[in-house]
Amino acid sequence: MTDTTSNQMWGGRFAAGPDAIMEAINASIGFDKRLAAQDIAGSRAHAAMLAATGIVSDKDAEAMREGLLTVLSEIEGGTFEFSTALEDIHMNVEARLKEVIGEPAGRLHTGRSRNDQVATDFRLWVRDQLDAAEAGLVTLLQACLAQAEAGADWVMPGFTHLQVAQPVTWGHHMMAYVEMFGRDLSRVRDARRRMNECPLGAAALAGTSFPIDREMTAEALGFDRPCANSLDAVSDRDFALEFLGVASICAMHLSRFAEELVIWSSAQFRFVALSDRFSTGSSIMPQKKNPDAAELLRAKVGRIFGANVALMTVMKGLPLAYSKDMQEDKEQVFDAADHLMLALAAMEGMVRDMSPLRDNLEAAAATGFSTATDLADWLVRVLGMPFREAHHVTGSLVAMAEKKGCDLPDLSLEDMQSVHAAITGDVFDVLGVHNSVASRTSLGGTAPVRVREQIARWKEILS
Amino acid sequence: MTDTTSNQMWGGRFAAGPDAIMEAINASIGFDKRLAAQDIAGSRAHAAMLAATGIVSDKDAEAMREGLLTVLSEIEGGTFEFSTALEDIHMNVEARLKEVIGEPAGRLHTGRSRNDQVATDFRLWVRDQLDAAEAGLVTLLQACLAQAEAGADWVMPGFTHLQVAQPVTWGHHMMAYVEMFGRDLSRVRDARRRMNECPLGAAALAGTSFPIDREMTAEALGFDRPCANSLDAVSDRDFALEFLGVASICAMHLSRFAEELVIWSSAQFRFVALSDRFSTGSSIMPQKKNPDAAELLRAKVGRIFGANVALMTVMKGLPLAYSKDMQEDKEQVFDAADHLMLALAAMEGMVRDMSPLRDNLEAAAATGFSTATDLADWLVRVLGMPFREAHHVTGSLVAMAEKKGCDLPDLSLEDMQSVHAAITGDVFDVLGVHNSVASRTSLGGTAPVRVREQIARWKEILS
Amino acid sequence: MTDTTSNQMWGGRFAAGPDAIMEAINASIGFDKRLAAQDIAGSRAHAAMLAATGIVSDKDAEAMREGLLTVLSEIEGGTFEFSTALEDIHMNVEARLKEVIGEPAGRLHTGRSRNDQVATDFRLWVRDQLDAAEAGLVTLLQACLAQAEAGADWVMPGFTHLQVAQPVTWGHHMMAYVEMFGRDLSRVRDARRRMNECPLGAAALAGTSFPIDREMTAEALGFDRPCANSLDAVSDRDFALEFLGVASICAMHLSRFAEELVIWSSAQFRFVALSDRFSTGSSIMPQKKNPDAAELLRAKVGRIFGANVALMTVMKGLPLAYSKDMQEDKEQVFDAADHLMLALAAMEGMVRDMSPLRDNLEAAAATGFSTATDLADWLVRVLGMPFREAHHVTGSLVAMAEKKGCDLPDLSLEDMQSVHAAITGDVFDVLGVHNSVASRTSLGGTAPVRVREQIARWKEILS
Amino acid sequence: MTDTTSNQMWGGRFAAGPDAIMEAINASIGFDKRLAAQDIAGSRAHAAMLAATGIVSDKDAEAMREGLLTVLSEIEGGTFEFSTALEDIHMNVEARLKEVIGEPAGRLHTGRSRNDQVATDFRLWVRDQLDAAEAGLVTLLQACLAQAEAGADWVMPGFTHLQVAQPVTWGHHMMAYVEMFGRDLSRVRDARRRMNECPLGAAALAGTSFPIDREMTAEALGFDRPCANSLDAVSDRDFALEFLGVASICAMHLSRFAEELVIWSSAQFRFVALSDRFSTGSSIMPQKKNPDAAELLRAKVGRIFGANVALMTVMKGLPLAYSKDMQEDKEQVFDAADHLMLALAAMEGMVRDMSPLRDNLEAAAATGFSTATDLADWLVRVLGMPFREAHHVTGSLVAMAEKKGCDLPDLSLEDMQSVHAAITGDVFDVLGVHNSVASRTSLGGTAPVRVREQIARWKEILS
Repeated sequence: MTDTTSNQMWGGRFAAGPDAIMEAINASIGFDKRLAAQDIAGSRAHAAMLAATGIVSDKDAEAMREGLLTVLSEIEGGTFEFSTALEDIHMNVEARLKEVIGEPAGRLHTGRSRNDQVATDFRLWVRDQLDAAEAGLVTLLQACLAQAEAGADWVMPGFTHLQVAQPVTWGHHMMAYVEMFGRDLSRVRDARRRMNECPLGAAALAGTSFPIDREMTAEALGFDRPCANSLDAVSDRDFALEFLGVASICAMHLSRFAEELVIWSSAQFRFVALSDRFSTGSSIMPQKKNPDAAELLRAKVGRIFGANVALMTVMKGLPLAYSKDMQEDKEQVFDAADHLMLALAAMEGMVRDMSPLRDNLEAAAATGFSTATDLADWLVRVLGMPFREAHHVTGSLVAMAEKKGCDLPDLSLEDMQSVHAAITGDVFDVLGVHNSVASRTSLGGTAPVRVREQIARWKEILS
Repeated sequence: MTDTTSNQMWGGRFAAGPDAIMEAINASIGFDKRLAAQDIAGSRAHAAMLAATGIVSDKDAEAMREGLLTVLSEIEGGTFEFSTALEDIHMNVEARLKEVIGEPAGRLHTGRSRNDQVATDFRLWVRDQLDAAEAGLVTLLQACLAQAEAGADWVMPGFTHLQVAQPVTWGHHMMAYVEMFGRDLSRVRDARRRMNECPLGAAALAGTSFPIDREMTAEALGFDRPCANSLDAVSDRDFALEFLGVASICAMHLSRFAEELVIWSSAQFRFVALSDRFSTGSSIMPQKKNPDAAELLRAKVGRIFGANVALMTVMKGLPLAYSKDMQEDKEQVFDAADHLMLALAAMEGMVRDMSPLRDNLEAAAATGFSTATDLADWLVRVLGMPFREAHHVTGSLVAMAEKKGCDLPDLSLEDMQSVHAAITGDVFDVLGVHNSVASRTSLGGTAPVRVREQIARWKEILS
Repeated sequence: MTDTTSNQMWGGRFAAGPDAIMEAINASIGFDKRLAAQDIAGSRAHAAMLAATGIVSDKDAEAMREGLLTVLSEIEGGTFEFSTALEDIHMNVEARLKEVIGEPAGRLHTGRSRNDQVATDFRLWVRDQLDAAEAGLVTLLQACLAQAEAGADWVMPGFTHLQVAQPVTWGHHMMAYVEMFGRDLSRVRDARRRMNECPLGAAALAGTSFPIDREMTAEALGFDRPCANSLDAVSDRDFALEFLGVASICAMHLSRFAEELVIWSSAQFRFVALSDRFSTGSSIMPQKKNPDAAELLRAKVGRIFGANVALMTVMKGLPLAYSKDMQEDKEQVFDAADHLMLALAAMEGMVRDMSPLRDNLEAAAATGFSTATDLADWLVRVLGMPFREAHHVTGSLVAMAEKKGCDLPDLSLEDMQSVHAAITGDVFDVLGVHNSVASRTSLGGTAPVRVREQIARWKEILS
Repeated sequence: MTDTTSNQMWGGRFAAGPDAIMEAINASIGFDKRLAAQDIAGSRAHAAMLAATGIVSDKDAEAMREGLLTVLSEIEGGTFEFSTALEDIHMNVEARLKEVIGEPAGRLHTGRSRNDQVATDFRLWVRDQLDAAEAGLVTLLQACLAQAEAGADWVMPGFTHLQVAQPVTWGHHMMAYVEMFGRDLSRVRDARRRMNECPLGAAALAGTSFPIDREMTAEALGFDRPCANSLDAVSDRDFALEFLGVASICAMHLSRFAEELVIWSSAQFRFVALSDRFSTGSSIMPQKKNPDAAELLRAKVGRIFGANVALMTVMKGLPLAYSKDMQEDKEQVFDAADHLMLALAAMEGMVRDMSPLRDNLEAAAATGFSTATDLADWLVRVLGMPFREAHHVTGSLVAMAEKKGCDLPDLSLEDMQSVHAAITGDVFDVLGVHNSVASRTSLGGTAPVRVREQIARWKEILS
């Protein structure tokens, strides 16, 4: 089979064969063989349609469809010999099909072109990735929900600027990621719905004069409908760009969670213990337990968004219809998809396995005058003070506590009244971290009652 | 008002005031004053809710709401003096409100924080941009449809690799852009639906103990619902990133169309004449008529996608909840939105004003053996030849024509039969460009009948 | 002056004036007025050369040169009225020059074009920024050196994976940034050297038939030589891209330092106290002292690298020579340069003002079995153990200490000998953090003696 | 060998082994085996130094050095079995070395760590790529020079905005690319000079207490000096980022040239004929000769700059010293380097093989009133008209010619004098394209005499 070059398949137009550099830069078989299953599925649907519309005989179509299964099993079994001279997966499959079934193989390409064929194959592949991303996100959401449920009322510091700001609940923090990954899930579904149109039958760019039935092939391949414009069908890579964009935002969320896990695992924070399964040692520092998986996850947004930049740059300013530049689309998406799936799985494993260190979380929540806002709110609510004045009074009390080297609840009532005479002993009720979080019952707030509501809502959504 | 510094508003915590560099790097009022209308709308909704829930008196709320209108009219009238010392739009508005209405101004900030306030303002602003993008896309789609309708059956070359491949119709080419901008419209709508949740009431990060009604403020501001998690509400910039991603793909489409307009306007192509309104002259070459607007449109994807990269990089690895890094979000989105809207308007104007040069298009369509595929398809359809063999025969005929310096229809029947004896005179029917496009009637194909169907479909969608 | 439109200056070629959208998308005066000083310097050099070569009279040249100074002082004095209808800074200056000096103004544009004029202006502007970046880097390097010198022998934890790895010195850590910023300085200088060629006289793209003296204008403007190819001179934006690339790497370094400052300022680390000058408070949490400046610095790499992406995307695939797309170059570079300079200044201020908390640093250095490597090295060096075996023994001792809840120096000799009998009491010498850092005297190592050598070397370099 | 897991090499610290996901995300052997030769070279230099400094015996060092050669020949011979459980190339080589030479293998890692080892390996690899890029650029420059020399005085249109602006020479256009690739060469050399420092001996991050000789290993590996700060040595990836930045600008230049080749190959332009070696056919359009190589080259900037974005994003905000995120550096650089080298080779081949179509170039140069500037310059030079007035007169003459459907030289003297009475018959001398280019003798101008000067200068530079 390696004797039949792709060049020979084009016919006798070229005097000189492409030389080694050209082969190296031009051939895509090194990576597009990943589309083998999709390519064969597309060809089988096309063959069935060619028979149904009378363009080829039932017998020929049956031979093609059976022969293609044979080729597929050779590829899956690892016995298929890919040929670089045959350039791409389409030519490799077709050349082998000809060896297997002979002359009818030559009729398979009727009413289509490599342009719509590759667009179809690639769309099918990307669609599979969107489905895999959906599954990965659902599993990750469940892991986050499990963490949230276990610690719905555990107290930890809520940070702004990495400074302790107010106490929040562990469950609340976990549920913030549920919202993020939930939006990712929503974007994945929108992207899938939008891209689920079939390019097959757009032919090179203009459609075809054969009486093909594009509805039939679209349906056979699980598409909602055929692409409505043949020029667009072969020129468009929106589906790949949208996948990369969706994946990039998701990877950004993973990078934020990963950053928190790295910080929380430090000796200075000790908020969580990551499992040994997602940590590694060091060749020179035997005591180290490094959050390698979290660090690698933090980095994946670079890789995935880099792929987005790459493909966006490739598509910039390309005239219609197909240009060879677009061959650069696949490797970017393959790499980004592989690493997104790996990252989702690794994050799911890390989240499921990690142990929040409840005592450390609670101890940290009580530092840094974290209930100052509760105090200010009490001044407003109970004493009717305007917010800005309450803010000023609270600031003075914090300054006093800082000077005394104590925390807010350790100030005496006299201390407090020296700053503002109307303060009463009731104020001490709001200065504990458990009271603080329990009091924040506004919709979406950190109070355990609110967190549990959200957990219940998400369980229902995912059920 | 410039005497009251933001620092003074925080209270007495800081011994030293921020110096000039800090003010320069920290202050956002230089750009976030664009959020004034949104900020005031948010504050008015918040004030009404504070009264409805009994947190402030009706009288105070009324004073706030009226005072905010006064401030708004000062800003809109250009008489408002923005103060850099007051850092941001929120502080500027509140400080002025205090001057206007006195003490009740101090109660406005009850149950909220700058974190949820800015998230709300910015979301409202981005939502307006999504609405503007929708309007701009609809108008552009109509301009493309008008061009498509006028030339539904005009013939032009369809290119692949910028080589003439097959004849297509002008209407078909225009409709390819309708599909692209149509997907952009769909993405804009998905983004708007997903982001239409209200952060107001998330407070600093944990929600609040005041009995606020987040459903009420959400509804008053046109949101579908409040954000479900207060940590996420103040930490999330997905809505901005998704806007930038959607805008980038749209700008990429504009760059492709713009590239075609630049090429089509060249003396070598002369496919279209751009109107003088969207062209310019040269300071040294008086005869030049340069497609400046098209070139600038081609460039906009750089700017808009650059903004996407910028914000993605900013968000990478940020721990929850709010970090000051996120202040860098607004200028990127402002700039990208401004240029997207400008680009949509300019493209709409260019498309509406441009004159396709019908004769040149048709003449070009007939060159380059553009009906070779029709010939190959005829061999398959009429003579029952396998596709690959038909391809080979066609290649030989093209080589013969090229050698003779003529086009395919100029070969004699004898010439043709010397390559394959079974060819008959009927073959000449498929070698004309009008017959060629008329024959490609597959769904989504370039035949005028198919193009008109798509035009009708889109008119209904946009009506 | 606003009556004279740029369109009128092109002559009568255009029937219709550009409409509002075109003016909005096309005019650059809104931003390129920042090039006023460079534009006038370039024109003055050009006028002098035109006289020296006899192309214009000395009297006319003198009138131009004087008139240009008048225009410059109007611009600097804020009395110049910029006109959008005149499109750009070149036309604005020239139109005003004509009002000031009359007819000779019309001779100024002899032997040049806007294409080489803008390329010259922009290059001069970028060159100024490279000089400013050099100055900013030198000042920042000095601030880092001062910190390094003050704490050359203070001990702190060296981290890998944000886990305590080995003790290092504060001076050593600071000197790592000196190396980074030192490379930035080197890149700035290379970029300046490479870009210091003068485009003036390249005219529109082909050079000119006037007997101009490009060496003379190049020298007058401080360039090393004229650009060697006129097509390249007007088409090239490498100098801008290289500036953005250099700035991006520098901003990445700033982001790393900023991240460390944010983490070190957290209550959990408390490694440094940032000055109030570079921190801010919170509107709702009066006790917060937020590292805002550090966070904003961390974000700047997004903005600056986003500009790099933007311009790279713009330049991708542009045919020669000048295309209007290139007008998008300036705003990206202006914004990136402004924020780089601000970031360098802010970092310099923060570094100079910050107080390392020596006791906390040292206490943290002693935790986490940070001298395990010293122990392993001792086993190799003193007992002649192969490294991998020493590593294993150390691991066992760490596990033992962890189990006992003590640190390595707290193990008894018996404990140690129970793991490996040959260990002697001398081992305790290497387990203290001061001994540890003092022992790492390899070139570039953390030992104070090595750090002080590097400080001395850098002081000499910068002197 | 696959039985010895990397985990076992760390010693007994971990209760549970990393599971499958962790292995997949953590192991780098799949790609870092490309560093095998560099890793072994580094280890051999390290072993020699360990002996020279007395840290290990000469005999052990000799065993290591010989054993490493054995391992290298196994790897080069394809008989080496890489193990994913051993994670990376360092562990794979060391484990095999132990099998080959036994106990002395355990002493090789003395005084170093995987952190400095991988930094050294990767730097050596990148340095090789810079050398390869230099060689590729020199060859490409020579191909451009050869084209320039062959057509130093051939006339073609000079474009701005893809509109014919002025005639230029083919040689001049080719030399514009020589300037671009020449700057690339200069950047490559600067990058190499800056990065040629040796991290080996920085150990994990702090240096070592072994009396190693870093000057010796640096010299043995061809480095100019050791890195001056051990923290920086293991944390820095500037060399990789600078390589990617340099490669990106070069790839942008390639994209511009490629765009021109695509446009020039179109039927509408026909400025060049690309050789069959760098073109391909179509599966459905047998007559097509597609500039695939040029299109693929145009796309490479996406891929390479995407890698730059990826690594910049990874490095953003990473605290010192080594973090696992940095493991993502290699695949980006590997891919970018591979494609840069391929692109340089393909462009060199295309440029060398392409045939400029001289007649078409010259015919195109004469269209579009391309000598209008020459006319305007004549009015200034001969009639002493101010430039702006000459510009206006020329505009009127162009408008007249356009109206008459003729070109500028076809206007009669009477026509000309009807616009401006002082015009004489001498004007026709400057309206021919050959006269036009010959007249533009300013330094760097398009006149053949100037072009030949530049060719000579570059030949000397490259000799």
